[in-house]
Amino acid sequence: MKVAIIGGSGHFAAVLEGLRATPDARLVGVAPGLQGENLDGLMQRCHKDLGLVSPVIPDWRDLLDRERPDAVAVNSHFHLNGELVLECLKRGLAVYAEKPIATDLVTLQKIRSAWRARPDLPLIAMQELRYAPAFTTGFHHVRAGKIGRPLLLSAQKSYVLGNHRPPFYRKRASYGGTIPWIGIHAVDAILWYSGSKDPVSIYAAHATLGNDGHGEMESIATLQMRFADGALGLAHADFLRSPKAGSHGDDRLRVMGDKGAVEVRDGRVFAQHRDRESEELELEPRRMIFKEFLDLVAGRGAMLIDTEASLRATELSLYARQSADTGLVVNIPAKDQG
Amino acid sequence: MKVAIIGGSGHFAAVLEGLRATPDARLVGVAPGLQGENLDGLMQRCHKDLGLVSPVIPDWRDLLDRERPDAVAVNSHFHLNGELVLECLKRGLAVYAEKPIATDLVTLQKIRSAWRARPDLPLIAMQELRYAPAFTTGFHHVRAGKIGRPLLLSAQKSYVLGNHRPPFYRKRASYGGTIPWIGIHAVDAILWYSGSKDPVSIYAAHATLGNDGHGEMESIATLQMRFADGALGLAHADFLRSPKAGSHGDDRLRVMGDKGAVEVRDGRVFAQHRDRESEELELEPRRMIFKEFLDLVAGRGAMLIDTEASLRATELSLYARQSADTGLVVNIPAKDQG
Repeated sequence: MKVAIIGGSGHFAAVLEGLRATPDARLVGVAPGLQGENLDGLMQRCHKDLGLVSPVIPDWRDLLDRERPDAVAVNSHFHLNGELVLECLKRGLAVYAEKPIATDLVTLQKIRSAWRARPDLPLIAMQELRYAPAFTTGFHHVRAGKIGRPLLLSAQKSYVLGNHRPPFYRKRASYGGTIPWIGIHAVDAILWYSGSKDPVSIYAAHATLGNDGHGEMESIATLQMRFADGALGLAHADFLRSPKAGSHGDDRLRVMGDKGAVEVRDGRVFAQHRDRESEELELEPRRMIFKEFLDLVAGRGAMLIDTEASLRATELSLYARQSADTGLVVNIPAKDQG
Repeated sequence: MKVAIIGGSGHFAAVLEGLRATPDARLVGVAPGLQGENLDGLMQRCHKDLGLVSPVIPDWRDLLDRERPDAVAVNSHFHLNGELVLECLKRGLAVYAEKPIATDLVTLQKIRSAWRARPDLPLIAMQELRYAPAFTTGFHHVRAGKIGRPLLLSAQKSYVLGNHRPPFYRKRASYGGTIPWIGIHAVDAILWYSGSKDPVSIYAAHATLGNDGHGEMESIATLQMRFADGALGLAHADFLRSPKAGSHGDDRLRVMGDKGAVEVRDGRVFAQHRDRESEELELEPRRMIFKEFLDLVAGRGAMLIDTEASLRATELSLYARQSADTGLVVNIPAKDQG
């Protein structure tokens, strides 16, 4: 399998890890998503992790034309995700794309249409949270019916802001917004654990308070989802975690069901049961998201996330951003119309 | 000081504890808030905790007329709170009232007007959460400026449902709703820690799923508040905690500021700092809410909650319930018009 990387601005670490772990895959080239994109971090990791000097091709179209890769990792400034994904799908290439897959609903709809014309093509978003062992473990606990019906799902994303974020984060036009960039993990986790329940409405809020000079980048966000069956989801995301707190992120998910509950916190999983004491669950082994993506491209195995879920989380995040921008509740079109 | 208790359906335990701890206060009588109200639990605790057989007067009006108490604990079926509080205020009596102080906005407005005519009268809601040592400790940490400006405030209330709740919980008309009954603690905690910021809108949702035959009683609820300065609050409440989880409630509050953060969880307080490692805060000693109420009535000291805060939390909870019932965002009138 030939793999190309476009852009060096997102979660390329998982891509390199997966490449290294997949003997029949090789990196055929790297291109910036736009002129002047900083690829230093990516190229340094290529050398360090893969021990190879991958060619850098100035125009990603040339990279795709010349190398004809089987799979592409889309990983540039976030506002380019949609255009790049669309072009890859048009060329019949499997895509592993930074989230959000698109930063506007019109482009997302084009991507959905393009993918429906080629549903054999894997199109997977970098929803790495699903591959964090605690989140995987908790999900399997819920899916096995251990908490009954999930009724109240609440998620937290909290990041250290730091001062190393590139300038494109400071403009909505290039960044896309904190709800589609970070809140999307919470949205996706809630949808995932809910068993793909249908959300009927979403309401959200966000603000740039305390963003330490990061322009239009929202530092805090909250959202609520109502599901068709009456279940409720809510999430909050922030960039206010202290750099001294001991880790970059503080990701949590708590799901209360009618027969039990599960909570993911500090990389651990705690379960409540109706008929016996609470317990901490043993973590499942860590799985590698991009290795599983490459295996999927090669027709081997299945991932913890599929294309529908990748599209859905993007869509809901964009609706949530719309709600936060307008202050209005957004009613969600039914899945098949979406 | 002469103290009367009307009703035996709410948090009378704190009332009895406070009576016992206040040498110059005595219980002059108990009355049901309505005919047939079960006072067994209250009277048993009176015997056990106070060692006295308090007279039970069938009509609370007779109790107030005959005994002319200085202070009244209002503690009946929740839909009666408003009427009882109003009558006490009209009679010039200090009131310690079960929350919500009223279960509808019209009655609440009457209470506000009545209290404004007699602002010397203490009217305090049973917002006991403020007196949980971890919540008190965290509040003082925030008020001392240790986290800077509070920007994102999220709260959790989670209770064991059990099967001992009296039938009046099963009807909205007598119960009032889970947001005013439980969510109000979260609303109050958020307002309190925010430094009494002005909320400009509230959006909420609730459902009866998994309420185990409890009729109209909501088992889950979520809400979001936007503050005038852009800060955000959100909360969730549920009755889905396992009876085997080890405690009745699981109350939490997390406040992210622009200079630090504080989190109350499991009766403990964790603080993040910008310039040094995170730490667990030492808990302040436990204070007794009803003892402090009686001291306030006697002109001694100050409480952790005042009348404005008691009214405000009630009002916001009723707006939140309205939002949840209608699915619409509720814009909050400015404080002085409220």
